[in-house]
Amino acid sequence: MIAVIEAYPDQCREGIALGDGFRPEIPTGVDKVIVCGMGGSAMAGEVARRFSRVPVFVNRNYTLPSFAGDGTLIIAVSYSGNTAETISGLDAGLRARIPAFAVSSGGKLEEIARSHGIPHLRVPRGYQPRAAMGYLALSVLRVLAQAGLLRIEPDWEELIHALESVRDASRAAVPEADNPAKQLARSLYGRIPLFYGTAGNTDLVAMRWKTQVNENSKQPAFWNVIPELNHNEIVGFSDERLRQGLSCVFLENDYDHPENRARIEIMHELLHGKVPAVVIGADGRSELSQVLSQIHFGDYVSYYLAILNQIDPTPVELIESFKR
Amino acid sequence: MIAVIEAYPDQCREGIALGDGFRPEIPTGVDKVIVCGMGGSAMAGEVARRFSRVPVFVNRNYTLPSFAGDGTLIIAVSYSGNTAETISGLDAGLRARIPAFAVSSGGKLEEIARSHGIPHLRVPRGYQPRAAMGYLALSVLRVLAQAGLLRIEPDWEELIHALESVRDASRAAVPEADNPAKQLARSLYGRIPLFYGTAGNTDLVAMRWKTQVNENSKQPAFWNVIPELNHNEIVGFSDERLRQGLSCVFLENDYDHPENRARIEIMHELLHGKVPAVVIGADGRSELSQVLSQIHFGDYVSYYLAILNQIDPTPVELIESFKR
Repeated sequence: MIAVIEAYPDQCREGIALGDGFRPEIPTGVDKVIVCGMGGSAMAGEVARRFSRVPVFVNRNYTLPSFAGDGTLIIAVSYSGNTAETISGLDAGLRARIPAFAVSSGGKLEEIARSHGIPHLRVPRGYQPRAAMGYLALSVLRVLAQAGLLRIEPDWEELIHALESVRDASRAAVPEADNPAKQLARSLYGRIPLFYGTAGNTDLVAMRWKTQVNENSKQPAFWNVIPELNHNEIVGFSDERLRQGLSCVFLENDYDHPENRARIEIMHELLHGKVPAVVIGADGRSELSQVLSQIHFGDYVSYYLAILNQIDPTPVELIESFKR
Repeated sequence: MIAVIEAYPDQCREGIALGDGFRPEIPTGVDKVIVCGMGGSAMAGEVARRFSRVPVFVNRNYTLPSFAGDGTLIIAVSYSGNTAETISGLDAGLRARIPAFAVSSGGKLEEIARSHGIPHLRVPRGYQPRAAMGYLALSVLRVLAQAGLLRIEPDWEELIHALESVRDASRAAVPEADNPAKQLARSLYGRIPLFYGTAGNTDLVAMRWKTQVNENSKQPAFWNVIPELNHNEIVGFSDERLRQGLSCVFLENDYDHPENRARIEIMHELLHGKVPAVVIGADGRSELSQVLSQIHFGDYVSYYLAILNQIDPTPVELIESFKR
């Protein structure tokens, strides 16, 4: 797992190149995108949602929303190619003759794409789905950029540079005294972490950190979004007994709304003496770099937390039991 | 609080009547709705999203998504009328000349609506925002029904009947031996509950139960959605130490996809001996009744859990500290 994490900047570079070479035909007049995907594969949809200029729905279900139809583009993403929900969602779209393309490392999704004549991008095999996010998210993002569906103009080189900065600071060879990911993992050990992102900005980072801690570190973790959580979740911290096993991680970057930034500071103060809390910033310059490099930093944190938990981060037996 | 909860079926009836009498002009050609709202007021948006035939975005932020524009209808919902995020979102919409209407018990939102000449529905004052969901959600739903924007034809009488069934079974006068809400609260006491809904169906129920336990019972609670959680959160239950303080509540109804229903059963079995878990069904007949009556059952559960926690469910001091 650590070798795959440390090679992630290169994986992202490959993902961009794969998307660049793919060039599926995207109909003009697309006014919404539905990304069918689950777990790690769904993160391709979350990244698309974060930077798209049209509404993107990440559809984590067996069925499509009722508004799927005219103007819709479906992107089916399943690393294995055999995710039941994703296949079921794409099937519904194909029956409704909605334009679609698919991304997988093979599996049934590739067969379905071939038999229906829809574009399919094959990414390399041999990864855990959550560890293949660079292939999945960056290839899809590159396709959307080429189709003019993003509201940003990605600086891909700057992105790779930001990811490399995270790797250079947090890779396994860097001792804990100098390694921010190892230090953060140590501070989270033995508690249930709550990852707090900001609406429309680092919310997907918080979501990803939560699922990476679940899957890599094999322990509970939860996430929520500022400012919504100030309207309800925060009240829960008044319970002196039940808050004892919790800790909070605020994920901010340079693109936060000033009001959300202020709320992070207020909340950090309010929690003082109640729940351990830490504020994490982001590497890189652009929105894209800051979001994706902060996600990548979480990969390291979840890996080192697995080591502290004395478990192998790779197997996910309980998930496999559902796929059988 | 309990008097307000027990009067909730009547509040919903009033909410429907308020929406019926409101009749704001809705432009033809609306292809998406953005509901600006936070906390309890945002639930009006969640209910709209659940039953709309066009995409509904519940916007819990100071800014609007970048795709807000042609074909968009904005609905600004703030019980107090003074929610900063909601006002900021509506302001952005008004600057972009996006059609809008507003719902509040007064406050700045009413003033803004009057000064900009947009329709405003005033709901009765004197409630906690989360306890006014019947006014907010049902009036908005009725307006959307009249505008032809729902994919269901609500049977309002059947809905009220289902809510009354919940009240008759779970009201304070019914002793614990016969009261399902008191029994469930007892079983949740002393742990952090995880409320699990199903994608596109009971997901908003799980969200509401979580926030009601936060605000009424003043304790931590979290929520997630099936089938997504089977791809990550479930792995967290392998941690024998950190899972100890958790319990799971599965929220199902007659409209669940068979695969999601099957996953609830499998997961219930997998958790046996690891984490206390219970499956809760829904009253009523229609989709609308089952969703809203299950939400209402959660109001009672969170109230009785507050009593067991020996705290007054009404004040929410930590939220007030943010609003000052």
